[in-house]
Amino acid sequence: MKMIDFRKTDINNGFWRKKTDLVSEVSVFNVYNRFKETGRFDALGCAWKKGDPYEPHIFWDSDIAKWIESVAFILEKRDCAELEKYVDDAIDTIAANQEECGYFNSCYQVHDKERWTDRTDHELYCAGHMLEAAVAYFRATGKRKLLDVMEKYLDYIRKVFMEDKSASFITPGHEEIELALIKLYELTGDKKHLEMCSFFIDNRGNDVDVEYRGVAHKYSQSHLPVREQKTAEGHCVRACYLYTAMADLARYTGDEELLDSCKKIFDDIAERKMYITGGIGSSGRGEAFTIPYDLPDLTAYSESCAALSLAWFSQRMLLIENDSKYADVIERILYNNALSSISLDGKAFFYVNPLAIRTHLLNRNTSQCDTKEYLPLTERKEVFDCSCCPPNITRFIASVADFLYTTDDDTLYVHQYIDSTTKTDKFTVTQKTEYPNNGTVNITADGIRRIALRIPAWCNNFSVTVDGAEVSPELRNGYIYIDNCDSSVITLSMDMTPFIVYPSSKIRDYTGRVAVQRGPVVYCAEGVRNNFNIMSFRLDTKTDFKEILCDTCGSYMLVAKGKIPVESEALYSREPEKFINAEIKLIPYYAFANHGESDMEVFMFCY
Amino acid sequence: MKMIDFRKTDINNGFWRKKTDLVSEVSVFNVYNRFKETGRFDALGCAWKKGDPYEPHIFWDSDIAKWIESVAFILEKRDCAELEKYVDDAIDTIAANQEECGYFNSCYQVHDKERWTDRTDHELYCAGHMLEAAVAYFRATGKRKLLDVMEKYLDYIRKVFMEDKSASFITPGHEEIELALIKLYELTGDKKHLEMCSFFIDNRGNDVDVEYRGVAHKYSQSHLPVREQKTAEGHCVRACYLYTAMADLARYTGDEELLDSCKKIFDDIAERKMYITGGIGSSGRGEAFTIPYDLPDLTAYSESCAALSLAWFSQRMLLIENDSKYADVIERILYNNALSSISLDGKAFFYVNPLAIRTHLLNRNTSQCDTKEYLPLTERKEVFDCSCCPPNITRFIASVADFLYTTDDDTLYVHQYIDSTTKTDKFTVTQKTEYPNNGTVNITADGIRRIALRIPAWCNNFSVTVDGAEVSPELRNGYIYIDNCDSSVITLSMDMTPFIVYPSSKIRDYTGRVAVQRGPVVYCAEGVRNNFNIMSFRLDTKTDFKEILCDTCGSYMLVAKGKIPVESEALYSREPEKFINAEIKLIPYYAFANHGESDMEVFMFCY
Repeated sequence: MKMIDFRKTDINNGFWRKKTDLVSEVSVFNVYNRFKETGRFDALGCAWKKGDPYEPHIFWDSDIAKWIESVAFILEKRDCAELEKYVDDAIDTIAANQEECGYFNSCYQVHDKERWTDRTDHELYCAGHMLEAAVAYFRATGKRKLLDVMEKYLDYIRKVFMEDKSASFITPGHEEIELALIKLYELTGDKKHLEMCSFFIDNRGNDVDVEYRGVAHKYSQSHLPVREQKTAEGHCVRACYLYTAMADLARYTGDEELLDSCKKIFDDIAERKMYITGGIGSSGRGEAFTIPYDLPDLTAYSESCAALSLAWFSQRMLLIENDSKYADVIERILYNNALSSISLDGKAFFYVNPLAIRTHLLNRNTSQCDTKEYLPLTERKEVFDCSCCPPNITRFIASVADFLYTTDDDTLYVHQYIDSTTKTDKFTVTQKTEYPNNGTVNITADGIRRIALRIPAWCNNFSVTVDGAEVSPELRNGYIYIDNCDSSVITLSMDMTPFIVYPSSKIRDYTGRVAVQRGPVVYCAEGVRNNFNIMSFRLDTKTDFKEILCDTCGSYMLVAKGKIPVESEALYSREPEKFINAEIKLIPYYAFANHGESDMEVFMFCY
Repeated sequence: MKMIDFRKTDINNGFWRKKTDLVSEVSVFNVYNRFKETGRFDALGCAWKKGDPYEPHIFWDSDIAKWIESVAFILEKRDCAELEKYVDDAIDTIAANQEECGYFNSCYQVHDKERWTDRTDHELYCAGHMLEAAVAYFRATGKRKLLDVMEKYLDYIRKVFMEDKSASFITPGHEEIELALIKLYELTGDKKHLEMCSFFIDNRGNDVDVEYRGVAHKYSQSHLPVREQKTAEGHCVRACYLYTAMADLARYTGDEELLDSCKKIFDDIAERKMYITGGIGSSGRGEAFTIPYDLPDLTAYSESCAALSLAWFSQRMLLIENDSKYADVIERILYNNALSSISLDGKAFFYVNPLAIRTHLLNRNTSQCDTKEYLPLTERKEVFDCSCCPPNITRFIASVADFLYTTDDDTLYVHQYIDSTTKTDKFTVTQKTEYPNNGTVNITADGIRRIALRIPAWCNNFSVTVDGAEVSPELRNGYIYIDNCDSSVITLSMDMTPFIVYPSSKIRDYTGRVAVQRGPVVYCAEGVRNNFNIMSFRLDTKTDFKEILCDTCGSYMLVAKGKIPVESEALYSREPEKFINAEIKLIPYYAFANHGESDMEVFMFCY
């Protein structure tokens, strides 16, 4: 199975065109300015001295790298001399400060600490992101300065880790370089990059690796050799970057054992450890996976980067196996956790994406004693001390068309529905759609013999026509297959009636509660849009939903029926609660927290 | 209104006789042994040196003092040469180490720190508890050695704080000495003790006090002068010890402004900040009151000492105002939070009394990263580093008959129902009852013209007979009044049918859930007694309850009807949950965690 990468696709109109425009015109500049202000660009000059402001941090190079990669992706679709100049300047500085041996790390180069002694210090992680940026910028512009820097750096890394074995550890504490090496291999075809990727993956968690580091730790997926890992464990971003590279490696090497781990780990996430929004990481401690069915809403961590990393892992799995479960997870992430990560104006970001906010908790403690409880942010911020998420979201959205298609010899698989035109030397495929606002997708496929359309798992009612004639193709692994479709117009109509989602009773946190979806979009209730305590609302599961177009969120607001209790004075009473009828306004989850601090919840009590 | 103190009452049989026997025969020895083992008794010798084990802690003197007071209360009702010897030895050591000036603090005397410089260091708190112990031990035995020590110490404290004003602060960081001074005043009639009490209370939170300390702080009730405080704030035990003394002072001085604060604060607690178990303190941060209606079950702090302190505050309010709301709160505490604090075998104690336990959370994080979440204990312990609760519970239960009666010129108010005989020089009153297991109370009142019986707020069906003839006395402020009852046998029959309790919808944590009570006893479900996930159980609010006598918990177990969901594989589904009928076993809340670590919940989902 081959990927049709986003470079071949133009997003023409509709929902995602607005998002890619926003990222290209607003977000990428905003992230640049915030990084500039906080010293991250200056740090590349490796001139910081003790006492200077803005002390370089171990992950700053990765922030810059993800921003460069975002610009590279944007430049694939539009010229922007200003952005290109910013990147060229940054690359010049990096190149000028690369050490003779090849090493570059703007934090280590200005600090006393001996390099390659601390596995948790993100040196290889930063190198990985810088390598991804170098590949992307070369592809976008043909400029190879950063690529040259990174190839030289990789030669040095190869010598230190694979030949001299002189580092204090064998595998990186934060995975990332593994998947970046695959990208370089895909660009160059040079097997040594695949070999280095194998080196880091194969050694992870094995006896020698553990011996070097002293502890076997789930946090960094080092508790077992990767081929023995069958469940998702530890820090979610680390984990999914590893799993992404594992899937890539399995695909290129045909390693069935590695593939089996990838499949089992994916199912462990999708069937037991994933929020309805596609978020992962139930706990802020360790930003980590916890135990199956442990998915608290209020304290959900659901880091933005984690959801993105799961989308990439899922995408790699799609290249191996034609099963819509992978594309379903991607869709869940796209329309929920990924988009909630960025504000509607494109300027601010969530690092943590909770599934509920209870504003009364914000001040429950602060006046009573000096210690404060951990409280998640209730509004997005433009930059964080640990600002991994903002440039990750910009590069993700700028390359969102990566998720559209895969192809094998005779079939084009359509995984996502986005208004777009994709051209390769073999075929041209056009989608016309207002999805997810509207469930109709018109697809014209020129030069394609057979097309496979994903029927989303949420969709229980759809119809298909080919050149106006209704057809009833068989559904297999979540796809319908239409043969002899060359030059035909295929129309897929998905029923977009909002519906109730019942969480598994194995999730102890949602007892008595349900969620609402319209298509792939998960909804939530916000306090600011309802004039009652939303936590006391009980949704009538038989309700019809009114749909009201909401300009600010670019989609529909829903109105649902239910009841709210009449507030009683008694704290505890033998009198049953009395209720009055009420209507609740729901907005897409991704649009929450764009109207100031407010109560919010996805899972609502019901009857 | 006058108190009839527990010394005049013999608890004859029934529920509370078992508890007072347990405390006298098991708990008080167990606490002694644990304190002995952990160096607390040795510390009184003030001989600890750096490098020695068991470094004395600032609150150790108060642990010993509360244990001495427990023994004093026990000695009122039974001889025990062994316990008396332990106390005499401890008092000898204290007396031998009292400084010439009168100071005694076993922690400060072996450390370098300058005395009276740190308001948060519990010096006056320890003095207060030691004073309470001295008064109690003198009353029980006539021995005045500790009383002499403490009167000398008080002279010194008076000089330092009221005359020389040489301390770095004016009022104690942890209240306690105020209420102890009232007890000494009640013993001696010497107004100077009342004056010192007034000094500490009147200065708290006023401008000079704040100036000395630098910060006005709710945590220690120092945010406002006490007469301007109208809500319960800060550290619960500190708060209620203060409120107890404020109520005492208002009663003795007729200070209406102070009384108004006490009344409003009591209502703030009882109507907005109290768990169904009588527990207070919604947050472990600061062990503090938070905001109204913030009563989470899983993270409830509900410190044992806090509930006891609220009972004492309520008792003082009963001496001012004949309103059953005060005795209702006492009853709520007696049969729930106070008793849950101690194990059924009398050996172990809870410091924190949660209203729910979810065992799956215990291991959700530890394997994923190095930091651990705060998790409450799921089983009782024999001793804590901060062991304030165990000897507080023993002294509370040993003097439980303090809560039975108050009297004014012509009426005896019966606040609690305990099988007992109370004799004063004016009257003898006997209660025969198996309450709370049985709702019938037979009362014989000799030498009493008028008796007032509290009808508990939970009780919505009762009958009364006088010498066998049914009467229908008016209910006023929660009491029924029976005139000319001298030598009569009065029988109160309360309907003990278990019932559903509906929490106010203002409490956001219990939406869709209810509790179960039988009389004053709150029930809970435990995982170990039910073969399904108790968090997924839905209680039928129309259920009948089967009552099964439970020997270990000394009361009834209940069986209720409801339903549980059929577990589905899908994490999120459009298919509504399916249910099957189920029965749930409930036990008294106070008996939870006596069968090993287990899930537990008080508030159950319902339909």
